[in-house]
Amino acid sequence: MDIVSVVASRRFSAEKMQKVNLFDTPRMFCDLYCFAPGQEQKVHTHPKEDKVYFVLEGHVTFRIGDEERTVGAGHAVLAPMGVPHGVRNDSDVPAVLLVFMAPNPNY
Amino acid sequence: MDIVSVVASRRFSAEKMQKVNLFDTPRMFCDLYCFAPGQEQKVHTHPKEDKVYFVLEGHVTFRIGDEERTVGAGHAVLAPMGVPHGVRNDSDVPAVLLVFMAPNPNY
Repeated sequence: MDIVSVVASRRFSAEKMQKVNLFDTPRMFCDLYCFAPGQEQKVHTHPKEDKVYFVLEGHVTFRIGDEERTVGAGHAVLAPMGVPHGVRNDSDVPAVLLVFMAPNPNY
Repeated sequence: MDIVSVVASRRFSAEKMQKVNLFDTPRMFCDLYCFAPGQEQKVHTHPKEDKVYFVLEGHVTFRIGDEERTVGAGHAVLAPMGVPHGVRNDSDVPAVLLVFMAPNPNY
């Protein structure tokens, strides 16, 4: 069975936010994004893919289109295809997000 | 911004396990599955879709193919396309799962 523990998979680097792949198929991928305080994923756009972020730990500020919102653990956010989106950790504690993208742009 | 709180969305019924849709696009969907003690999602197969389960709360027993595993909060499990899969809550406490599926079979 393909089973992973988030606690065992989370990984941080002082250099930049870390992406840890959990699952990868021709149809989708599922990653952990691990942000130390002050780190970010810059605003970018996927032309054909939807992304779901789920905040597992900490607080992050999402930019989706023209809107910004800071949300904590237990919240999910949708970044629809074609809409610019980014995430930053403005807090002073680590943040961990579960990220799901479909379809998988790497196939 | 399309943002949802899991705590505010979770819902249980004595009748059967509850599916609460969080996001739905032509490319994927994201649901909460809420299992009272003793409830299950029977083993079934999606011919073309991958599913990721993430256990948010409680413990559940996954059947993926011929294998069974009981796992708790913080674990993710992949049910690949074409592989029979099911979930049951054999515990005496509620269980809540975040579920992603791609592509979206409803489109």
